[in-house]
Amino acid sequence: MRWHGDRLELLDQRLLPAEEHWITAEGAGAVAQCIRDMVVRGAPAIGISAAYGVALAARHAGGDWKTEIGQAIRELAASRPTAVNLFWALQIMEKEFHSCESLGEATRRLAATAVQIHEEDLSANLTMADHAIAFIGAERPISVLTHCNTGALATGGYGTALGVIRRLHEHQLLNRVYADETRPWLQGSRLTAWELSRDGIPVTLNADGAAAAILAQGDVKWVVVGADRITANGDVANKIGTYSLAVLARYHRVGFMVVAPSSTVDMSLACGEDIPIEERDGSEVRQIRGVPIAPEGVEVFNPVFDVTPASLIDVIVTEKGVVHNPSVADMRSLFG
Amino acid sequence: MRWHGDRLELLDQRLLPAEEHWITAEGAGAVAQCIRDMVVRGAPAIGISAAYGVALAARHAGGDWKTEIGQAIRELAASRPTAVNLFWALQIMEKEFHSCESLGEATRRLAATAVQIHEEDLSANLTMADHAIAFIGAERPISVLTHCNTGALATGGYGTALGVIRRLHEHQLLNRVYADETRPWLQGSRLTAWELSRDGIPVTLNADGAAAAILAQGDVKWVVVGADRITANGDVANKIGTYSLAVLARYHRVGFMVVAPSSTVDMSLACGEDIPIEERDGSEVRQIRGVPIAPEGVEVFNPVFDVTPASLIDVIVTEKGVVHNPSVADMRSLFG
Repeated sequence: MRWHGDRLELLDQRLLPAEEHWITAEGAGAVAQCIRDMVVRGAPAIGISAAYGVALAARHAGGDWKTEIGQAIRELAASRPTAVNLFWALQIMEKEFHSCESLGEATRRLAATAVQIHEEDLSANLTMADHAIAFIGAERPISVLTHCNTGALATGGYGTALGVIRRLHEHQLLNRVYADETRPWLQGSRLTAWELSRDGIPVTLNADGAAAAILAQGDVKWVVVGADRITANGDVANKIGTYSLAVLARYHRVGFMVVAPSSTVDMSLACGEDIPIEERDGSEVRQIRGVPIAPEGVEVFNPVFDVTPASLIDVIVTEKGVVHNPSVADMRSLFG
Repeated sequence: MRWHGDRLELLDQRLLPAEEHWITAEGAGAVAQCIRDMVVRGAPAIGISAAYGVALAARHAGGDWKTEIGQAIRELAASRPTAVNLFWALQIMEKEFHSCESLGEATRRLAATAVQIHEEDLSANLTMADHAIAFIGAERPISVLTHCNTGALATGGYGTALGVIRRLHEHQLLNRVYADETRPWLQGSRLTAWELSRDGIPVTLNADGAAAAILAQGDVKWVVVGADRITANGDVANKIGTYSLAVLARYHRVGFMVVAPSSTVDMSLACGEDIPIEERDGSEVRQIRGVPIAPEGVEVFNPVFDVTPASLIDVIVTEKGVVHNPSVADMRSLFG
């Protein structure tokens, strides 16, 4: 993601790894469309993009600037339902916006706030990686398994779960990463394998269904994933297939770690059942990159996220600290 | 699969559902290649095809017919390693062949034996479906989840796990089938969804990673799968992802049923660790139908099968009867 003050450039994640194509968004509407169409995805990256979208709305606003910026915020908020970072970032932008007394002031301050949200996310990633390494306490290299993409593409840079993996690698504590391909959108094969290969981090790609066989082999010590929303009791919404891994990790006595900035925590929801789960079009399952792989029109169940109960999570890592065996009390004491 | 006496016609399962293309095999070598290349797949269908391959070898044999048929059997036996039905069928054919005193007799008797293997498999499917329905004892329609393809395409006709599902539907005891798409080869989306749609059986396709979320919803009462090899203690090798479902079924208190003809039982192996597990080329994960979906050359772990321990299996259904909570003693009493 590249911010140029008057435009936001987004690497089109739908085309990776075949093509590295940047899309330029010059207004809030274009940013909202990029979020809807998954040009940009990953909970933190969605939040940061939306913040830049508000900054662009201010830049283009005219006489009725308050109405126009308010509308832009509403359009951005409607782009995707599950990741709470989107609403968190928009709330910060909206608060800033409401305290501005002129369009000039709004233009300056909203751009500065968006940049700050971006920088703080990157900084949170680095802090989380340190917390996670300390918690894991590995003395020799370990292997881990991850799901979806939680790297530089999904965040302000570095990554959440993938940030932990990068840091393990930097400390020579990483043997190998197994990356679930993550159907239907293939974030694992298209994005995670691409990011890790480019950075020379040893990665083995596997079909999602092979994760159980991998865990049974005993080499993997931790399953490390990101999150799209974490509720007050420590339940976690994340990419479809995460819940499956949590059950498998518990069965195989493998650690299960969720890594996410505190902007992913939504203390207003009591538990995972309260999280709205986006379902996307069945064509994502019936086709792969436009190639039909199923009978035309066959019914499809295509939830984008699932909910992992806190009881299956060993640790939630945020930049504010870690929550071991998450409980309502521990969540409240860290996230108030 | 269509047997014409002088040739075997196989519906090319690699091209379904986009194209219904039949491949004609006129000799054992062609049949072996069809098995290797997965023109035909599914443990029972592989066994039946191999039997027809031996019959074709006899038809084409010359003066040194004993050597030629022996070589054909060895070539067919080397085509794929995991499904034991292949070796079981070839053993029957070899025994028959060794008792023949002339090429004419071998040609006649091997063809008749192959047809008998085929017919008995179909008959076993129907018997298994009855056993399974009696075991399930549903009084109102239930939903089930299945993995891979175990239907008419994978067997002599009707199907093993899919035969049970057909029979539930015939008895108006089926609410809905959830079909895992079954990466990497997509047997679920390409074959199972196709078979069920053609037969008007209500099917919902899902990414493999969504199975846990489906089981958590509580509608599915049974996970029903086939098998490629069952060992003396009741461990089951089946399509990669099966073991994952067994862990998930146990966690969600959903029944886990394995349906396979007794030809799938290999009492010569003590347990699942003894089963050779085929690994196929990483390109099956790096590409879908020839379209690249991952960085070129990225390392891939692509086991075709996994092993589900007997402890996670509620019932194994064969045409000889059912084994509830499989144990060495119960397996021995049914399969000697």
